Amino acid sequence: MPYFDAASSAPLHPVARQALQAALDEGWADPARLYREGRRARLLLDAAREAAAEAVGCRPDELVFTTSGTRAVHSGMAGALAGRRRVGRHLIVSSVEHSSVLHAAGTHEAEGGKVTEVPVERTGRVSVTGYAEALRPDTALACLQSANHEVGTEQPVAEVADACRAAGVPLLVDAAQSLGWGPVPGGWSLLTASAHKWGGPSGVGLLAVRKGVRYAPQGPADERESGRAAGFENIPAIVAAAASLRAVRAEAETEALRLRGLVDRIRARVPEAVPDVEVVGDAVRRLPHLVTFSCLYADGETVLHELDRAGFSVSSGSSCTSSTLTPSHVLRAMGVLSEGNVRVSLPLGTGEEDVDRFLEVLPGVVAGVRERLGAPAASPVRAADDSLIVDALGKRCPIPVIELAKVFGDVPVGGIVTVLSDDEAARLDIPAWCEMRGQEYVGERPVEGGTAYEVRRVA
Amino acid sequence: MPYFDAASSAPLHPVARQALQAALDEGWADPARLYREGRRARLLLDAAREAAAEAVGCRPDELVFTTSGTRAVHSGMAGALAGRRRVGRHLIVSSVEHSSVLHAAGTHEAEGGKVTEVPVERTGRVSVTGYAEALRPDTALACLQSANHEVGTEQPVAEVADACRAAGVPLLVDAAQSLGWGPVPGGWSLLTASAHKWGGPSGVGLLAVRKGVRYAPQGPADERESGRAAGFENIPAIVAAAASLRAVRAEAETEALRLRGLVDRIRARVPEAVPDVEVVGDAVRRLPHLVTFSCLYADGETVLHELDRAGFSVSSGSSCTSSTLTPSHVLRAMGVLSEGNVRVSLPLGTGEEDVDRFLEVLPGVVAGVRERLGAPAASPVRAADDSLIVDALGKRCPIPVIELAKVFGDVPVGGIVTVLSDDEAARLDIPAWCEMRGQEYVGERPVEGGTAYEVRRVA
Repeated sequence: MPYFDAASSAPLHPVARQALQAALDEGWADPARLYREGRRARLLLDAAREAAAEAVGCRPDELVFTTSGTRAVHSGMAGALAGRRRVGRHLIVSSVEHSSVLHAAGTHEAEGGKVTEVPVERTGRVSVTGYAEALRPDTALACLQSANHEVGTEQPVAEVADACRAAGVPLLVDAAQSLGWGPVPGGWSLLTASAHKWGGPSGVGLLAVRKGVRYAPQGPADERESGRAAGFENIPAIVAAAASLRAVRAEAETEALRLRGLVDRIRARVPEAVPDVEVVGDAVRRLPHLVTFSCLYADGETVLHELDRAGFSVSSGSSCTSSTLTPSHVLRAMGVLSEGNVRVSLPLGTGEEDVDRFLEVLPGVVAGVRERLGAPAASPVRAADDSLIVDALGKRCPIPVIELAKVFGDVPVGGIVTVLSDDEAARLDIPAWCEMRGQEYVGERPVEGGTAYEVRRVA
Repeated sequence: MPYFDAASSAPLHPVARQALQAALDEGWADPARLYREGRRARLLLDAAREAAAEAVGCRPDELVFTTSGTRAVHSGMAGALAGRRRVGRHLIVSSVEHSSVLHAAGTHEAEGGKVTEVPVERTGRVSVTGYAEALRPDTALACLQSANHEVGTEQPVAEVADACRAAGVPLLVDAAQSLGWGPVPGGWSLLTASAHKWGGPSGVGLLAVRKGVRYAPQGPADERESGRAAGFENIPAIVAAAASLRAVRAEAETEALRLRGLVDRIRARVPEAVPDVEVVGDAVRRLPHLVTFSCLYADGETVLHELDRAGFSVSSGSSCTSSTLTPSHVLRAMGVLSEGNVRVSLPLGTGEEDVDRFLEVLPGVVAGVRERLGAPAASPVRAADDSLIVDALGKRCPIPVIELAKVFGDVPVGGIVTVLSDDEAARLDIPAWCEMRGQEYVGERPVEGGTAYEVRRVA
């Protein structure tokens, strides 16, 4: 039963399991105690810190273990912002960061701070110039992911770090998606990561703060982890996290090459086998194991459900918005199609045959979903000269786009189709459809009960 | 090798180990996902919540899992204080709370809140009247431990909860030390606990918030655990925590009786076998497995070191101050002797023979430490009429008290001995010595380089 959602959580690596079991016997005591059980726990913790620091590329005393990647991000951002409070309260993030970064930015803004969201290109990549231009004299901190969690696009971290350094601004890199593949290049100031993304156990995050970075831990005082991560250390999990990071790094180069080949196969085959698909994300500068595509006229949740029934576990959009009806903030920021979105992220060791079977199954699944969606009660269409109005009010994604496509051939070249919709996804998906079809997206205006989206037929 | 520091961290219970190993296979995926691995993880999480809620005595939807007891305390206090911000910003804690509570109170005070510390009796117990009198119209929250972590004294939680309820103030109970022994009685509003204290794994805390309690989670938004505990859930550890809580509860009654017998033996024998010892904490209303005593003229760190060499792992004072030179805030608040302090807390299953061997070894260990400390370079003593001055400036605990005891017989009844000391522990230990010896503690005054403590010989 192939699990293709490693970007959410990777299955536990065998080395993590072995290390965890071994450390359960030695690592349960309080490492602050001086008796033998405490000393043993301390030795394990120190060794894990050495190993993790080496993999991160920092000094052991620059690294603390948190209880999750989210905690590392929340603590790291709060500590860095407070440490530079005198400089100012301006924060820079990209528009495609993980929700933990964006939520921490939201808190900062609610407390009176200023936030600039740097936009991304259609590939999901920030421009270095865009980032550099956002830097201000009162910028306390800039944040940038090493690679995007939804579309796999790698960010120009080293170049952005250079720009930040030139401005004297610390850069926090959220390396949650990439740390298993290799160290983050360049002169970052803070780095965060999450062990369960690389096959380590749940319950462990990393927070590295380079010496010299002004840092003021927030929240109640606590003497654990240099005062940067409150609460009793989970040493067995920490040991397993460090051991598995080493293990995945040892196989990273070979596996990256192999999985990149499988992902390339998906990138090439899906658009051949499934009509009206957009593969999103940077085609070259990307994580080796992750590919995302969106299917016109299909509904992501149903596609996922059908793939699950066929034995494939994949994801759609951001994990943090999967239970909401709004399109993922990442796809929205990229301006790409969000409907029928599927993210495939292959765990280490994924077999070629599983990928091939996925490619066999997918076209039928999408076709089935489309077929069922393609026969809704026809929307009333009112013609006026050479224009048409499609009333899709009250209908959910992907119906508005399906209705648009159905009548589009009925207007002459130069004619206009107006779609009335109150579904948030239409705002993203109608322009994306125009982009894919080579038609002109004219714009939107509010109407009673929703929004009118105008599309001109140019081809 | 007997480990007698269960109050710091208990060895992993066999049931916790089994449950953890089983859940590693089923509980690594994201429980927010709808595919089979996610659904399995969600089932495990839900079942663990049911089991833990039953043991706590609350509804499953009132309980969330945090990453430590400290986190549960920090989040619980911050959320409850923010939820009642309109009522006021007054917080009540006892003076013997765990450092996590006191540090959160410190943060609240630093942010402009008001804090009342309710004092305790010499047994470490708060008086219900004292607590009730601290309640004010602007009190947002009161906090009280179920039992003290350093001396084992049980607090009158149900009575204090009644007083709080009458005043419309929520009571947060830190049940870290007692939850394994049984549910917390009475009408508490919030409850916190820590799994590794009952033999569960590290990395899991509990936070229960009763329906109807005003609660506003602080920090960046996060959809996990009802928005009350940010970060990816550590489901294998959560499963192990819930399973082991059930398991220890099943044996709690029998083990409590048995360990209470062993602790009674220590309470009786230590003062017989070791001269100049004060057993501290409530003799009756106490945790079954924990006993604490202080040895005059001995230094806690050295006693611990010698006991460790003899194979016994015990603790001294608060875990949170073991690396500092100041006496534990708990012993200070109780006004008892802090020097030569030893806490013995027996894990489940502790054998009678281990306790007996401890009782055999202890007298020699304390005598040895005292012997080595008893021969410091004699302090210059200047006589003035019927008074003596002991200059112990620059000398560390327990030397000032040893010097006092050595010369005390040299003044006549009614005479005064003044001890000059710059050691913080003297402030606690000289009055405590007077109490133990039936002599009169006159008081202290500042002098150049330290403090002068005056003691009158009355017997």
